[in-house]
Amino acid sequence: MEKTNVAIVGLGTVGSGVARLLLDHGDRTARHAGRTMWLKKAVVRDLTRSRDVELPDGVLTDSLQEVIDDDEITVVAQLIGGLEPARTIMLSLLESGKDIVTANKALLAEHGAELFTRARELGRSIAFEASVAGGIPIIANISQCLSANQIGSLEGILNGTSNFIVTQMDENGASYDDVVREAQRLGYAESDPTMDVDGTDAAQKLAILAHLAFGATVDWSQIPRTGIDGLDPEDLLYAQKLGYRIKLLAIAHLANDGLELSVSPTLVPVGTPLAEVRDAYNAIQVIGDAVGPVFYHGLGAGQMPTASAVAADLIDTAVGRTRLTFQTLEYFSIDQPPRVKLRDGDTSRGRYYFRLSVSNHPGTLASIAAVLAQHEISIASVIQHEGREGGPQRDPVPLVIMTHMATEGQAKAATDDIQALASVTGPVVRLRVKD
Amino acid sequence: MEKTNVAIVGLGTVGSGVARLLLDHGDRTARHAGRTMWLKKAVVRDLTRSRDVELPDGVLTDSLQEVIDDDEITVVAQLIGGLEPARTIMLSLLESGKDIVTANKALLAEHGAELFTRARELGRSIAFEASVAGGIPIIANISQCLSANQIGSLEGILNGTSNFIVTQMDENGASYDDVVREAQRLGYAESDPTMDVDGTDAAQKLAILAHLAFGATVDWSQIPRTGIDGLDPEDLLYAQKLGYRIKLLAIAHLANDGLELSVSPTLVPVGTPLAEVRDAYNAIQVIGDAVGPVFYHGLGAGQMPTASAVAADLIDTAVGRTRLTFQTLEYFSIDQPPRVKLRDGDTSRGRYYFRLSVSNHPGTLASIAAVLAQHEISIASVIQHEGREGGPQRDPVPLVIMTHMATEGQAKAATDDIQALASVTGPVVRLRVKD
Repeated sequence: MEKTNVAIVGLGTVGSGVARLLLDHGDRTARHAGRTMWLKKAVVRDLTRSRDVELPDGVLTDSLQEVIDDDEITVVAQLIGGLEPARTIMLSLLESGKDIVTANKALLAEHGAELFTRARELGRSIAFEASVAGGIPIIANISQCLSANQIGSLEGILNGTSNFIVTQMDENGASYDDVVREAQRLGYAESDPTMDVDGTDAAQKLAILAHLAFGATVDWSQIPRTGIDGLDPEDLLYAQKLGYRIKLLAIAHLANDGLELSVSPTLVPVGTPLAEVRDAYNAIQVIGDAVGPVFYHGLGAGQMPTASAVAADLIDTAVGRTRLTFQTLEYFSIDQPPRVKLRDGDTSRGRYYFRLSVSNHPGTLASIAAVLAQHEISIASVIQHEGREGGPQRDPVPLVIMTHMATEGQAKAATDDIQALASVTGPVVRLRVKD
Repeated sequence: MEKTNVAIVGLGTVGSGVARLLLDHGDRTARHAGRTMWLKKAVVRDLTRSRDVELPDGVLTDSLQEVIDDDEITVVAQLIGGLEPARTIMLSLLESGKDIVTANKALLAEHGAELFTRARELGRSIAFEASVAGGIPIIANISQCLSANQIGSLEGILNGTSNFIVTQMDENGASYDDVVREAQRLGYAESDPTMDVDGTDAAQKLAILAHLAFGATVDWSQIPRTGIDGLDPEDLLYAQKLGYRIKLLAIAHLANDGLELSVSPTLVPVGTPLAEVRDAYNAIQVIGDAVGPVFYHGLGAGQMPTASAVAADLIDTAVGRTRLTFQTLEYFSIDQPPRVKLRDGDTSRGRYYFRLSVSNHPGTLASIAAVLAQHEISIASVIQHEGREGGPQRDPVPLVIMTHMATEGQAKAATDDIQALASVTGPVVRLRVKD
C-alpha cells in the first residue's frame, strides 16, 4: 500500500487528538485514503512536557526544520493557534513544498489572502475544515455539496463557549460570572474567554463562511458584532415569557443591495431548530435557492470533534481532492474581486426587543410609543409589570416592547431618542428578533 | 475556460430541474467547477411531451445512441427510475466511456455491485448523492467529511412521503387514506405509493448508507421493515400522551456482535431532533466515535433539492473529485468482503410500546403482566382508560403498556403469548421506542 507521510506541528489538545486518530486507527484512515497515513513527525516547543498521547520513538521533535527538510513529509497539520509564529511557520512549510491542513480561523480571517495566494503560486493547498464549527463539516458542505446553489442566507451558532454560557444562564438561572467560571472548569472556556464571549471568534468564522458562500471579501473586524458578555439574565427571562431563547447568532443574509453580516445576541423562537441548540453545540442553517433549508448540528469544539475535521482534511489532501478543490475555487484570492458588496447595516430589516427601565408615572408609555411611531416602528407587544395590587409600588419599573419589522437604522435612532426621555432611567437594551 | 459536455438521460421532474440549473445558472456551476458545464444533450422517450424547461435547439433527442456516440460528452446524469431499462442504459453509458451521476437508489440497492464493478473495470465513476435523502448531502458527509470516524449509529427519517403522512395524521388527526390522497394531490406521493409507505424505499436507502458507513453488504430486502401503511391513528394519540411522536425510523446500530438494521414506525421522544422533523423533510443523526453526534435536516425529495444534489455530483465529477473518491473507496465491490456482519435481529435491545384491546374483567392486566414477566420484560408504564364514572362500561377496553429494555426476541415471543390470551380481543400492536 502507498504511504503518505504526515507531520503535526503543535501537539496541544487538537494535535494530540489528530495524532491519536492517525496512530490508533490507521486501518480506518487507510481505508478512506487508499493509502497508509503515516505520522512521521510531531513538532512541539517543549519536549519535556507530558502529553496525553504516546508517540512512537523518533516522532516527537522540537525542530520544525526537521519537517521542512524532510521531503518525504508531504502533508502537515499546522495546529498552532494565534497569528505569529503560526503565519511564518505556515509560509515556511508551504515554501518547502508541503500541503497544509489547519484549524486556525484567526490566522485565516486575518492573513487568508496572503497565505492562499502563496500556496497557489507554489502549487500547494490549504485545507481548513476544522477552522469553523469544529466537527460540523460546514466548509465542505458549502464549497462542494451545495455548489449548485445560490446561498441566500446562513445563520449559525458558531461559538460553543458562548452557547454553553447562555444555555446555563437560561436553564439554571445562573449568573454570567458563575457560568464563565464553570465553563472554564469544564474546559469549554479559555482562561481569558474574551474572544469567545465578545463575538470576535464568531465574527472571524462568519467572515470565512461569508467568503465561501457569497464570495464576500470581508475584514472580520468590520462585521457589526455584540457579544454575550453584557447579557442581562433578566432579558433571558423576558425572552422565555415571550416564547424565545436568546442565542449568539452569526448571520449572513443576501439581499438585492448587498450582503448583511452581523453577530449579536438574538431572540430565536422556541421550537425552531436554532433555539434548541444547547450547551457547547454549534449549528448552522443554510438556505440555498435549489436545495431549500439545510440544517447542521454538532459539536463545535473539543479535542476529538476538531481532530475528526483535521483528519478528514488530511485524508482529502492525501487522496488529492483538496488540491482539485483548491485549484478550482479561488478562495481568498487577491486577484479575485469580491462577488458581493456588504450592505449598509442600517438598512437591514428585522424585529426588535426593547427593555427599558421607566419611571412609574402616567404618560411614560405614551411618550415611548410616540418616539417609536415617529421612527415608523410599530409595536407588536408590550410587557409591563406593575407592583402587585396592594403591594409596594415599584419605581422604576421594567418595560419590554416587541416591535414589528423595522430597519436597523430606525431602531438605532429610536433607541437614542428613547434613551433621552426623562422617564427612562437606565440604559435601553435592544436585541434583534429572528423571524 | 475549459468545457465539460454533459448529457441528461431522462427529463422528468428531477431531470428538468438539473437542466434548469445548468442552463440558467451557468455562472454558478462554472465558478464551482472551474470550467463551463455545458448541457449538450437531453434524452427523452417522447419528444412531443411538454416539459417545464426550455431547451436550446438541438439539445433534446430521443436517441440514447447520440449520447453514446458523442465522445465530447464525458459526464451523464442518468435520471431514469426503476431497474430496467435503467440498468442496461447505465451499462452502455459506462462502456462508451461516460462518468455517471444517478439518483436511482433502487437500481443501486439492487445492482450496485455489478454497476460499480463494471465502472471500476472501465476506469469510470458513478456518483449517487441524490439517491439518499435528496438535498441532504449525506453520501459525501459519510464518505468524506466523517472519514476519520468509526460510525457507531445512524438513525434517519429517509422517506419524505411517509413522514408527510404521519405528520398530517399526527397534527390534524386525519385518517391515513385522506392524507395519502392529499399527499398525492401535492405531489408528495406517487399514484401508487406502496414502495414509500411500506418501508421499501427507506430500506433501500438504509442499505446504501449501511454500506458506506459500515462496509455492510446487505440485500435491502433482508432488512426487517414495517411501513406506516398499517399505522392506527390511535397509536399516534397514545404516543402523544406519553410524550412521543411516531416516525418511520431507519436505523443502523453497530454492536460487538454485528450491525443491526431496521425500518419501523418508532416512538421518538418529543423535543429530540428526530421527533421535530415534519412533513416531507428528511433527517439523519450520525454518531461517530471522534466527532460525536452530527445531525442533518433538509428536504428529502422534490425537484430542486434533488437536482441540487445531482448538479453537485456533476460538478464533482467534472472537477475530478468523484474519480479520486471512487478509486479510493471500494464501494459495492464484489471483490471486497463485507467488513461487518449483520446481527441477528432478535438480539437487538430496546424499549417497546404495546397496545392491546382487552376484555374489561378482573385479572386481565395480571395475566398480561405475567406473560411479560415470564419473558423477563419489565413494565415502565401503563395506560388503561375505563369508561367514564357512571357512563356506559366499555368492553373491550384499550390497554397501553410501555416496557423497559428487552430484546426483540423477547418482545416478539411475548407478543405471541399475549395474543393467545383469551382476554385479548384484537391484534396486539407492538412498536419500538427510541431512547
